[in-house]
Amino acid sequence: MTTGVETFFRSRWVRRPDGVTELEPTRLPEGFRAAGVATGSKPSGRRDVGVLVCDRDEAASTTLFTTNAVAGAPVHVSRQAARDRLRAVVVNAGNANVGTGARGIEAARAMTHALASSLGIDPRRVGVASTGVIAVQLERERILEGVERASGQLTPDGGGDFSEAILTSDSAPKRACLEVVLSGGGPVVLSAQCKGAGMISPAFATMLCFVETDAAIDAATLDRLVREATTCSFDRITVDGQLSTSDSLFAFASGSSGSAIEPGSGDERRFAAALTALFRQLALEIVADGEGALRVARITVKGAADSVEPVARAVGNSPLVKCALHGGDPNWGRILQAAGQAGGTGGLDLAIEGIPVVRGGEDLPLTDAEQRGLDEAMVRREVELELSLPDRQAEAELFFSDLSEEYVRFNSEYST
Amino acid sequence: MTTGVETFFRSRWVRRPDGVTELEPTRLPEGFRAAGVATGSKPSGRRDVGVLVCDRDEAASTTLFTTNAVAGAPVHVSRQAARDRLRAVVVNAGNANVGTGARGIEAARAMTHALASSLGIDPRRVGVASTGVIAVQLERERILEGVERASGQLTPDGGGDFSEAILTSDSAPKRACLEVVLSGGGPVVLSAQCKGAGMISPAFATMLCFVETDAAIDAATLDRLVREATTCSFDRITVDGQLSTSDSLFAFASGSSGSAIEPGSGDERRFAAALTALFRQLALEIVADGEGALRVARITVKGAADSVEPVARAVGNSPLVKCALHGGDPNWGRILQAAGQAGGTGGLDLAIEGIPVVRGGEDLPLTDAEQRGLDEAMVRREVELELSLPDRQAEAELFFSDLSEEYVRFNSEYST
Repeated sequence: MTTGVETFFRSRWVRRPDGVTELEPTRLPEGFRAAGVATGSKPSGRRDVGVLVCDRDEAASTTLFTTNAVAGAPVHVSRQAARDRLRAVVVNAGNANVGTGARGIEAARAMTHALASSLGIDPRRVGVASTGVIAVQLERERILEGVERASGQLTPDGGGDFSEAILTSDSAPKRACLEVVLSGGGPVVLSAQCKGAGMISPAFATMLCFVETDAAIDAATLDRLVREATTCSFDRITVDGQLSTSDSLFAFASGSSGSAIEPGSGDERRFAAALTALFRQLALEIVADGEGALRVARITVKGAADSVEPVARAVGNSPLVKCALHGGDPNWGRILQAAGQAGGTGGLDLAIEGIPVVRGGEDLPLTDAEQRGLDEAMVRREVELELSLPDRQAEAELFFSDLSEEYVRFNSEYST
Repeated sequence: MTTGVETFFRSRWVRRPDGVTELEPTRLPEGFRAAGVATGSKPSGRRDVGVLVCDRDEAASTTLFTTNAVAGAPVHVSRQAARDRLRAVVVNAGNANVGTGARGIEAARAMTHALASSLGIDPRRVGVASTGVIAVQLERERILEGVERASGQLTPDGGGDFSEAILTSDSAPKRACLEVVLSGGGPVVLSAQCKGAGMISPAFATMLCFVETDAAIDAATLDRLVREATTCSFDRITVDGQLSTSDSLFAFASGSSGSAIEPGSGDERRFAAALTALFRQLALEIVADGEGALRVARITVKGAADSVEPVARAVGNSPLVKCALHGGDPNWGRILQAAGQAGGTGGLDLAIEGIPVVRGGEDLPLTDAEQRGLDEAMVRREVELELSLPDRQAEAELFFSDLSEEYVRFNSEYST
């Protein structure tokens, strides 16, 4: 069931951990079923309602949600659910159910009830997520019909349909399934499906992400591992600096493999490494699939603890830096300007793809070979920027996409 | 010498104060001379070095500079000048002399020395400003030759040439000359020339701005009035949220009219009103001339004192809101999202051109006439947004431009 080729860990910034093998990306771990159906929300006619279920009553779970003060109705409803004991989640794509007031809350709640009723479980054990246009009322009846239909089609092979149903402006599904060899027990399986391409600047996790494992892992440990993996993955990306109203992550552990992940064990470290690599590559897929994006840059900022994060964000969210990245232009003056805006002082060092271009705030002369190297590096799919402020106690990393005419075109169209 | 028509106060958000008359926009007050010459920095061959001089030794002055930590060499040199006793300023456009280290500082200093020597005055009484590409060494000798040539061409009629010499990506000069009737003495003349179209998000004043008056006004009063006028003009605009490394404002009072502006007097209020209206319209010209911009929106945010400013900035700098503005799309969901990102709570009210679209965070049904009104309003040159948070003690105002494909095209080209 392994693919034999490594197709998932494509970025040079993510390493496949030892003991991790790629399985078919649409596969789900034992104890899970999923489905995805089309109800007509997407102009393309593609699947737009997805359902994911853990069949084990003893399932453990955790969740992360957007910190946007104007969160969508599904976030409100999911926050009230039994966070550590969720059994299922229902998702619709095409309408985010945001800014829809009491009617929106009622519609989100009806979605969880419809799924709970089909499964014969407590509605408090069902989460809900929506993504798509904001500030438009949900077509409630059509979605509920879709939930019912999807519930009837749940299958262990439904990971592919589910991963397609959650997409909006994404160019392709973002998903993976990994086998993680443990020393204590047999291997466990870890999978995830996510979506996201615009309105991406998570303050925790981004977008929608669904994570499943057949490892036996208690909810508190799952929560801790998910949070740790998130801080160096979904927390470290930006497409347009815009914190979504709908960002949601749901993680489930079925325990069906019989292999337990004990807190503090070597197996926990192995599982955490796999989870982190999984999240990091998925996060990179989101940036690479940024609306209209051609490439991804990583900026690492070394400096004082209170400045590395704002400086990295200022650079990664600068429209001028992003336009230069789009044009393949090593316009490092804009990087200094953005860093300075966030308080990065004048004595900066900057290297682009390992080629030092600024030292102590001053431009360095480049050899012809260096200039050629710079020009070539800037037009690749991945570009590496290293910025150092005078005081180097801390480090922050951020992955960001370029800003293209296509982004503007896409987002200028009437009510996308 | 009046134009007879009102051409300057074009925005509905600025009123021509009583007692203020428009003069020829290129005119300078008594006691000033200016010039602008071409040295070949601009591909267009246009004027690129400007010189402005106050002929009265008792001139009073004030300055404002960018708060960007990576400020340009001219800002460093001008900060060391005699801030309240400046007699002249030299400007070049095409190269901002930023990120150029000790050589850049030396070049900026040489510019002030060249002008001081031509004028026979103390170099500490000369300011310098540069605008254009950043992180490229200045072509020192060519610029110095230009300074010398411009110094030889100084004339009371040189305001037009000077206002052209300071431009970069601006589509047209931004300038005005006003006559202000005082009760205490004869009228005084107030003029200004400014530039700015990209990298605009001033944290005080934006871009380059030069202000002249023949009123007799002491430096401390001039400074206070300039700062007050700036807080409701250049401080309230954003094109791309990017704080420039070069923002500089120089204001000079020659006293040549013989009319004094006494602190606390009615004449001070009249002069302040004229200065504020002048700055506000110039600020609006900058937003309207934002790179690739089609229109300007004003957002006023009412709410708690600590939230109105970040919410206004979050909305005005959101690429998604700016793309919707570009497309003439009343996509108010994005306004809620951006407000929520800055902590604006869910119970928001929003009106677009006076049409309430959201109350208490929930969409309001629109009549056909309202929907039509909304659609028409969104494609005009100026769009009015009013956002209210639940707690309404404070208010902030921000003018912002749309984000267009042309902005991206312009800023993606190699080293603009």
